[in-house]
Amino acid sequence: MKALIIAGGRGSRLKDFTGNEPKPLARLLGLSLIERVILTAKEAGITEFVIVTGYLSEKIKTKLGDGEKYSVKINYTENKEWEKGNGISVLKGKGLTDEKFVLLMSDHIFESDALKRLLKAKLPGNECILVVDRTPKKHIDLSDATKVKIENNKITDIGKKIKDYNGIDCGMFLCGQSLFGALRESIKNGDETLSGGIRILSKKGKMKPFDIKENFWIDIDTKEDFREAEKILCKNLTKLTDGPVSKFLNRPLSIRISKLLAKTKLTPNSISFSSFILCLLSSYFFSLGSYIYIAIGGLLSQSASVIDGCDGEVARLKFQQTEYGAWFDAVLDRYADALIILGMTYGYWKLHGNTAIWIIGFIALAGSFMNSYTATKYDSIFKKRKKKPKIRIGRDVRLFLIMTGALLNQIFFTLIILGVITNAEAIRRLFVLRKA
Amino acid sequence: MKALIIAGGRGSRLKDFTGNEPKPLARLLGLSLIERVILTAKEAGITEFVIVTGYLSEKIKTKLGDGEKYSVKINYTENKEWEKGNGISVLKGKGLTDEKFVLLMSDHIFESDALKRLLKAKLPGNECILVVDRTPKKHIDLSDATKVKIENNKITDIGKKIKDYNGIDCGMFLCGQSLFGALRESIKNGDETLSGGIRILSKKGKMKPFDIKENFWIDIDTKEDFREAEKILCKNLTKLTDGPVSKFLNRPLSIRISKLLAKTKLTPNSISFSSFILCLLSSYFFSLGSYIYIAIGGLLSQSASVIDGCDGEVARLKFQQTEYGAWFDAVLDRYADALIILGMTYGYWKLHGNTAIWIIGFIALAGSFMNSYTATKYDSIFKKRKKKPKIRIGRDVRLFLIMTGALLNQIFFTLIILGVITNAEAIRRLFVLRKA
Repeated sequence: MKALIIAGGRGSRLKDFTGNEPKPLARLLGLSLIERVILTAKEAGITEFVIVTGYLSEKIKTKLGDGEKYSVKINYTENKEWEKGNGISVLKGKGLTDEKFVLLMSDHIFESDALKRLLKAKLPGNECILVVDRTPKKHIDLSDATKVKIENNKITDIGKKIKDYNGIDCGMFLCGQSLFGALRESIKNGDETLSGGIRILSKKGKMKPFDIKENFWIDIDTKEDFREAEKILCKNLTKLTDGPVSKFLNRPLSIRISKLLAKTKLTPNSISFSSFILCLLSSYFFSLGSYIYIAIGGLLSQSASVIDGCDGEVARLKFQQTEYGAWFDAVLDRYADALIILGMTYGYWKLHGNTAIWIIGFIALAGSFMNSYTATKYDSIFKKRKKKPKIRIGRDVRLFLIMTGALLNQIFFTLIILGVITNAEAIRRLFVLRKA
Repeated sequence: MKALIIAGGRGSRLKDFTGNEPKPLARLLGLSLIERVILTAKEAGITEFVIVTGYLSEKIKTKLGDGEKYSVKINYTENKEWEKGNGISVLKGKGLTDEKFVLLMSDHIFESDALKRLLKAKLPGNECILVVDRTPKKHIDLSDATKVKIENNKITDIGKKIKDYNGIDCGMFLCGQSLFGALRESIKNGDETLSGGIRILSKKGKMKPFDIKENFWIDIDTKEDFREAEKILCKNLTKLTDGPVSKFLNRPLSIRISKLLAKTKLTPNSISFSSFILCLLSSYFFSLGSYIYIAIGGLLSQSASVIDGCDGEVARLKFQQTEYGAWFDAVLDRYADALIILGMTYGYWKLHGNTAIWIIGFIALAGSFMNSYTATKYDSIFKKRKKKPKIRIGRDVRLFLIMTGALLNQIFFTLIILGVITNAEAIRRLFVLRKA
């Protein structure tokens, strides 16, 4: 299915913020608004787009091109009357879309899950579906929102100023060709807005609502909306399988860092590599053996643990997730873990000459690996059940233990504890997975 | 879709072999023939069965029950005239199957892939499809086989004695209800065989062939057929991703052992555990340090490597493959690898007091783990491409290296070589997968 994206408006309320750029090219966490809309729709399975440009049309075309760099196909049509109502822009899409199509706004950011669900909805002939928010989250500016009245699973009224409403227009539609007729009728009646066309379909009983439920969406009109969107997109980066250290320490820090990194050109893989280099340094400091170096080693390993969250976060924020990237990160992490434990063991042995540390180091290394080796299977249970695991001993816990032990100058005991905890956890998982 | 299985015959040619059991209960590699047919069909997605019994009907019902132990549903119908032609047995299935059904013989063993493909074939109303072998493999006894003549993608003649044929009847059908009418007509004409009914459909142009192509199938009538089936089922156990040592040494040995183990009640998981115990012993002997013990350790680790193939083989032979079993085996293998390397390192250090061996052991352990950690992703490329990997350094190679090094009393160099090869392989895979 194709998506028609309306990107003709100027966004005058953002004039100071966007400068000489059209609003759809305003950047949110390293991507322009319209890129976000395209890439979100692509995540939901849409690969062909028709974009209606207007204000600074050429700039948008130059930026997006034919879509090849996003692995999608983009066609354009221009609405020279972009200063009039947005219904005219939508009408420009007639003939460029198929029987059914998705209609999106270039300044409405949403979660791909919402669109995925919408695409599965059944669209009876001649009807249209509007995604609505029946329990608007508190970041929605109700005074400026387009409201809808829903009765018996039909939209019966729509408008910015209606008093009696029970839903908010999220700016996402699944449309049939009947929309174009309704728009023409509305324009003839003097209302050039998209809402005008929708109102006509509503009166005919041909407009159905689709609840966005818990999925995130936001209409970006002001600087505050940008900040709000950044905040929520970042908040959504926490993972169900985050361990305790990750949840309370690493993730809050890494999200702050990712918010900055997303605005740079750093790739997720180069962030993974930076985290690996920190571990290499940590290993080196540990291998020197004396307290001050050990303490530095511990702090470096904990920093690496924080940065290790950023690669995935930036990838998700910028739609740069790849299977290879996740795997590359995992392989580097395993080598980093081995290096740190080797550094700790060697440093302790050099200073104290106690050979038992080598056996302990071996056991800690094996346990650490087994922790990671069993993680994918273990996590998959909880993803399936959509539950948080009660116990989740992973890399976040291991590196936090190492930092704490290093600061306390207790390498010997740290390696013992690490060996016991990680191996016990691996064996526990054997039983948990057997039951599942 | 339901499957109708014909299991009424006596199989007189196998009298000496089956003794007091009906032929469908004759055991092939630890499972009775009819269990194999049911479990193969289940692998292809069929979960409901109607079985037509005859000779020693009660014994079959007692053995299979309602199918719960195989996680399928089994219903029975009895053909008291089982000594007559098998067409009468098929006719007993009328009313117990749906509009379309699969028809199978209890003494025809086949690969589930063949049935999977057949289930995807389109069956136009009133027609039936017969799976045929157009290029019979050499184990097929042509003198006794039912032959078919295929012209213009229709079967035009069928029979054991037809001279002009270009395919062999594999005993698997995708049928519509028209089969029953044809059988009745054939019986009225005095031919009570299934082939009689098929011949009537053929004359009406309602019989289509479906090529089994490279998939394995065999009609089991004699003791020689049993032996042949065992041989081929075992031969099919080799894997596309088998490494060089596995291919030329371990697999030929493990298949011979699995052939025996399949006939016992040993579960795949208990075989995995036995292999782990061998590794534990190997580690202990290595840790003693002196040559004779090291040599024993090396031989034990290589035996473990062979037995490590048997768990999966027995599981595949007896349809006991589980996701947990494969994972349990992998986790035990990782611990076993760690124990063997620890034993080697400790034993060498005890005897020679050279601490450098600990660092080398660490690197070998990390590399060994990384080899396994990266294997799933690496192998997945080749499975997708249906190609053998040119280079495949895995556990088979590692344990073979360890045995060779142990027999040569070269623990120090073995660990160095192991460390270099495994880590180089892990890094090589990073690049191979990046390209893919």
